Amino acid sequence: MIYLDYSATTPVSYDVLESYNKATKDYMGNANSIHSLGVKSKVLLNSATKQICELLSINEDELIYTSGATESNNMALKGVALAYQNRGKNIVVSKLEHPSIYKICEFLETQGFEITYVDNDSDGLIDFEDLRNKVRSDTILVSICAVNSEVGIRQPLKTLRQIIKKENVDTIFHSDITQAIGKVPVNLHDVDMASMSGHKIFGPKGIGFLYKNSKVRLIPLIHGSGKFNDLRSGTPPLPLIVALSKAIRIALKDIESKEVSVKKLNDRICDNLSKYEGIILNKTKYSIPHILNISLSNIRPETFIHAMEEEEIYLSTNTACASGDLSTSVMALFNDKDRATSSIRISLSYVTTNEEVSKFLSIFKTKYEELNNLKSKEN
Amino acid sequence: MIYLDYSATTPVSYDVLESYNKATKDYMGNANSIHSLGVKSKVLLNSATKQICELLSINEDELIYTSGATESNNMALKGVALAYQNRGKNIVVSKLEHPSIYKICEFLETQGFEITYVDNDSDGLIDFEDLRNKVRSDTILVSICAVNSEVGIRQPLKTLRQIIKKENVDTIFHSDITQAIGKVPVNLHDVDMASMSGHKIFGPKGIGFLYKNSKVRLIPLIHGSGKFNDLRSGTPPLPLIVALSKAIRIALKDIESKEVSVKKLNDRICDNLSKYEGIILNKTKYSIPHILNISLSNIRPETFIHAMEEEEIYLSTNTACASGDLSTSVMALFNDKDRATSSIRISLSYVTTNEEVSKFLSIFKTKYEELNNLKSKEN
Repeated sequence: MIYLDYSATTPVSYDVLESYNKATKDYMGNANSIHSLGVKSKVLLNSATKQICELLSINEDELIYTSGATESNNMALKGVALAYQNRGKNIVVSKLEHPSIYKICEFLETQGFEITYVDNDSDGLIDFEDLRNKVRSDTILVSICAVNSEVGIRQPLKTLRQIIKKENVDTIFHSDITQAIGKVPVNLHDVDMASMSGHKIFGPKGIGFLYKNSKVRLIPLIHGSGKFNDLRSGTPPLPLIVALSKAIRIALKDIESKEVSVKKLNDRICDNLSKYEGIILNKTKYSIPHILNISLSNIRPETFIHAMEEEEIYLSTNTACASGDLSTSVMALFNDKDRATSSIRISLSYVTTNEEVSKFLSIFKTKYEELNNLKSKEN
Repeated sequence: MIYLDYSATTPVSYDVLESYNKATKDYMGNANSIHSLGVKSKVLLNSATKQICELLSINEDELIYTSGATESNNMALKGVALAYQNRGKNIVVSKLEHPSIYKICEFLETQGFEITYVDNDSDGLIDFEDLRNKVRSDTILVSICAVNSEVGIRQPLKTLRQIIKKENVDTIFHSDITQAIGKVPVNLHDVDMASMSGHKIFGPKGIGFLYKNSKVRLIPLIHGSGKFNDLRSGTPPLPLIVALSKAIRIALKDIESKEVSVKKLNDRICDNLSKYEGIILNKTKYSIPHILNISLSNIRPETFIHAMEEEEIYLSTNTACASGDLSTSVMALFNDKDRATSSIRISLSYVTTNEEVSKFLSIFKTKYEELNNLKSKEN
């Protein structure tokens, strides 16, 4: 099997699963309980939190565990909207966001908020001038993802922050960093809030976090006793948190050299695929090497994906969470419907090997030619 | 170790953890992906859902996975409040709810909703006449837990439903069944919505569900692509769902005979403890045998709990999620502050043995006498 859909989800790494099992078996107490089994669990919980915060250079009261990035995005956008609606009702988002951001925005529109979309250039970079113009005195929040999930466009968070804060120092800057963390360095101090999911970095499904700096007020999405965290109630899922902590540690280790090795693989694939007539690389200078989006001009992407999986090679059309056949990100970049409806995402990881890429390219060639010949005969 | 805090959380059963591990290792695809790894995951997901729904006699579109009961309670109360606010803004709750229900209600009050508290008698039973009077034409929701978490009062859901629907057929009836499921039979058709957590029934932390019958409309708490479930977005945490399904199957198996065996243990403990002067059993004819609440008149409950844990016996004061020293449920039942601030919860499970109860009673005697003697010397 050659798995090239790491941006949809990743397998849980052996060490992470081992941490999960150990915490499940040896730490059964509810971390909210006062007896020593509860205290023992609380100690492990605090130690996992401390590790994550040290790795991300944030304070422990700035980390809120959630069930994943979708919940984090909801908590961030709705929580800020509710908390700051007296100051303004405008929210600015990019055209390169995860579907969950748009759905939350649609909901917020029904609640009287106004959503403004900031433009990007044809390389995917946020249009600085447009951002400057769109951040107004009533703009309470800007949400721009660190790395786009379909084309892998990486945004310069520090620069975006400077623009946003220059226009309106009170505007809160949130970023969905789900596709960035563990792939490229992310400095959480460039943003006020950040969302992520464990299962994109070889961690378990059902756990993630929202980073929120201490200046930001939030109305909780999930109210409750607040015994563990007053912004997110519920019994803390200790084994998932311990596993997340381990996954983050592994993901951030040697991140620069891992990125270099993924870049080499990406370059090899691009060199090879760019020789095909009828294949367009949806790649710009801001694409991270882990996500390679291509458009096929003659073959339906679903047909090609199913042909590849016959040889146990796994690719995807666009983000697994998108509905419909059109890649909104390819559209936002190239404004070309054919290209956006014929796109395939090849997503790599630092565990991807040179041998896997060789085999992928060889099978790609066979399948591509087969399907093109079939197409020619049909015509 | 003798664990008698099963109502706070339970250890994960061996079979459940095995299911979790198997799903993690063998089903790595994102159930939202179109390739065969995704489809394989989706098939397992559907099969787990089918099993849960068959066990609970509900339809598959009536089950919404959440991160646990606190999220389910938030989704139910806020979701109904938002969806039905044009019909009315009154919500009725009991005085025996989990803290999360009250915190959600406090939030809803800030949003213009009116919360009405229904009385109960001194046995904990909801006052039918009072419920009849408090359900009004603008009452959109009644939320009453199936089993109270501190004193274990079980409510007759079917009767409550009849009263609610007779007064206002459109009023939605939600019940937090977290402390009921797997302990006593629960018929989900007695309610319109029900919340639960996996970790109370030997399942993992971080997963639960909201049952919602098809007539109830909800505004989602967590918006997103809705690809898996349009009422609760996010990548489905397949291994947690499979583990939950296994936990529910085990919990419901032979539930009547398991309840009988827990009742025998509870009777033994009650017979023994009722002989102590200075111990009051906070038990009524509606208490389920799994939860035994007592008040100590001479010893601070924390002191006693820590004394017991020296011998590796684990008890709790009140619900692990409560803040402060007062049991709101003991107060709601007996209206006695001394009794409510000196309460201890002994919570049993079908895995509790006769030998454990013998040892518990023997150590209880020793510790109780020791601490009482100490108290006498001090005075």
